[in-house]
Amino acid sequence: VTERLSRAAAEQLDDADPLAGLRDRFVIDDPSLVYMDGNSLGRLSIATEQRLARVIRQEWGGGLVRTWEDWLPWPGLVGDRLGEALLGAAPGQVVVSDSTTVNLYKCAAAAIDALPERRVIVTDSENFPTDRYVVEGLARERGLTLRMVRSDPVGPLTAEMVSDAIDGDVALVTFSHVSFASSAIADMPAITDLVHRAGALVLWDLSHAVGSYPVELDASNVDLAVGCTYKYVNAGPGAPAFLYVNRARQPELRQPIWGWFGQRDQFEMGPAYDPEPGIAQFLVGTSPALGLAAVDEGLKLLAEAGIDRLREKGVALTSFLIDLHDAWLAELGFRVGSPRDPATRGSHVALRHPEARKLCAALIERGVVPDFRTPDRLRFGPAPISTRFVDVWDAMDCLRSLAAQ
Amino acid sequence: VTERLSRAAAEQLDDADPLAGLRDRFVIDDPSLVYMDGNSLGRLSIATEQRLARVIRQEWGGGLVRTWEDWLPWPGLVGDRLGEALLGAAPGQVVVSDSTTVNLYKCAAAAIDALPERRVIVTDSENFPTDRYVVEGLARERGLTLRMVRSDPVGPLTAEMVSDAIDGDVALVTFSHVSFASSAIADMPAITDLVHRAGALVLWDLSHAVGSYPVELDASNVDLAVGCTYKYVNAGPGAPAFLYVNRARQPELRQPIWGWFGQRDQFEMGPAYDPEPGIAQFLVGTSPALGLAAVDEGLKLLAEAGIDRLREKGVALTSFLIDLHDAWLAELGFRVGSPRDPATRGSHVALRHPEARKLCAALIERGVVPDFRTPDRLRFGPAPISTRFVDVWDAMDCLRSLAAQ
Repeated sequence: VTERLSRAAAEQLDDADPLAGLRDRFVIDDPSLVYMDGNSLGRLSIATEQRLARVIRQEWGGGLVRTWEDWLPWPGLVGDRLGEALLGAAPGQVVVSDSTTVNLYKCAAAAIDALPERRVIVTDSENFPTDRYVVEGLARERGLTLRMVRSDPVGPLTAEMVSDAIDGDVALVTFSHVSFASSAIADMPAITDLVHRAGALVLWDLSHAVGSYPVELDASNVDLAVGCTYKYVNAGPGAPAFLYVNRARQPELRQPIWGWFGQRDQFEMGPAYDPEPGIAQFLVGTSPALGLAAVDEGLKLLAEAGIDRLREKGVALTSFLIDLHDAWLAELGFRVGSPRDPATRGSHVALRHPEARKLCAALIERGVVPDFRTPDRLRFGPAPISTRFVDVWDAMDCLRSLAAQ
Repeated sequence: VTERLSRAAAEQLDDADPLAGLRDRFVIDDPSLVYMDGNSLGRLSIATEQRLARVIRQEWGGGLVRTWEDWLPWPGLVGDRLGEALLGAAPGQVVVSDSTTVNLYKCAAAAIDALPERRVIVTDSENFPTDRYVVEGLARERGLTLRMVRSDPVGPLTAEMVSDAIDGDVALVTFSHVSFASSAIADMPAITDLVHRAGALVLWDLSHAVGSYPVELDASNVDLAVGCTYKYVNAGPGAPAFLYVNRARQPELRQPIWGWFGQRDQFEMGPAYDPEPGIAQFLVGTSPALGLAAVDEGLKLLAEAGIDRLREKGVALTSFLIDLHDAWLAELGFRVGSPRDPATRGSHVALRHPEARKLCAALIERGVVPDFRTPDRLRFGPAPISTRFVDVWDAMDCLRSLAAQ
């Protein structure tokens, strides 16, 4: 066992890693930094830094307003590329714009307004805060009932766990594909089927899945989805989020924030709102050109790596991390807060410990960067595109020495 | 007259301009470009380019998730600076985040939800499209009536023009401070008073005012305001917008998009939405760090110039432009689509001509960049901070030679 968990073994895993070379495509000024928070803010790639410099200097500084001709189609263009590379979504169904929360609001409101006779929204108690708050607000505003499924804080959400909550009163069901807290992967295809059999619509938050797990929106017949781009897509702090609306649902769904970027013949500036027929109706205001360029570069690199290879490496990295936990940390008061079955685990791992908050600060001080999530979770997100097995080894080694003190 | 309108006279005006030196603070790769669209997309400053490079490389690339400690307060911090430098707003009332349209939606919804017994929203037919569409959508959703004031397409909106529309049924009145089309300045203090006497709330769109006109939100007792930062604030394509909520109104107003950035003790991730008591309640999702940095740099430069000096130069530039129009263009089929009285005119001028669309394209081909707005407007926005009197002269000279062909 020791041999298999030695640092030399980690080095061998890196030597055999077909994606190892991609680490060199990132800006890494401090090679001693062990970065384990790719699930919160992804790294900056060299291509992204260069692309942003061009957008800033040449496209904005030089081209000025003339470049808007190029920028205008970006939300849909980058959305199509994201859909193809990472979401299993055919063109015309994804746009990149606004924040994840604003997109959740637009999509959730569109769904419940399409089924006005149904008076219930379903989500789960372990869902990410903003996802819960958005539907809480919509339920209050529209006089609907919010039905909370109590989900497992460690294991994945299954169709069985939610079936009792989903009946003919339900308009909208919304869950996260990969749990921000536990990393557990909800059974998207089965839950989507269940929701459809009840005549309701489903909205998936893909924030912790996109770029780390091969999402199949079209194949799963998902109605609506949203997600952020600053985690595994590496598009930078506050980069614009995306939303997906299934082409078959687009004619019946209308989002509530009526803006000029959703207007047909936008620059005709007509007297009344007359929305674009397709996904563009879900656009609202002016989208950030810098952020869109960063999303474009980020997804290009992921597409080059290939989502299946990224997933495979994600499984290997997190499995290695859990093996090290079992060998070193279990006896120091830790427990794994994520599924042990890699088939239901995303690309991060939560380790739970009563002193997690303090340990997180101590790790960061020593150049190992995970993050802390209340009440007792240390989250380690070794982004497959830029993280080595030795990084995982070094992180666990540092944690073991801190916890043993 | 000829002498006063010669290019030599324009050069003399530049020589006497106390703000002339500020042009050197901008990235100007092509000195022959005559940029007249500062009211649509402002120029890139050297400081902004450098700041963005630092945010990208050092704060994101090097600091990674650790920098969020610095970025988190930016929406309020930059909002306070914007409020002080350009809006006449004391701290704690402005945040920078989201697009102008999303901010319009949040503010308009907050106002009408605060006065549920009142069933009318008032705006004007010449208001910017997205402003009209947002309230059209809210009126539809809430079952309210949208009352459209027919405003003058050239002259300013006065309290007299809107008084008939504002009665005890009105919840919200929303107008633009400076018209995107005509550049006319609405009488904000008088209209705000009128709205308050009717017991309604007012929401001002400052997009074409901020950075070009000394807005006095607190002194005018404005309830709510929004505006963009990519025009005179020079924060770049799609930079985040701002919103203002008067401190006295904050306790009674709640915006409808309940997100985790408006949540008290955000990272406690509590089970129910429990909003921050102040302006932070109007935040929703993750704000773009790059865009916020650009807003900060943009407003710093404007603060250095001083809004009163910028206003003074804006009046001089637009007056010079109108004088040249009168001397050269009136006889070629043009007419001024903006107020002639500089006291009611913002920092851009609309010239109307049946062939405006074609003339705009021809100007751009010759290196003079205004923009076109349907149906017949050429808009010239000589941003005071970076535009010379000779630029105005060259633009009008080019237009005269094109129109005379």
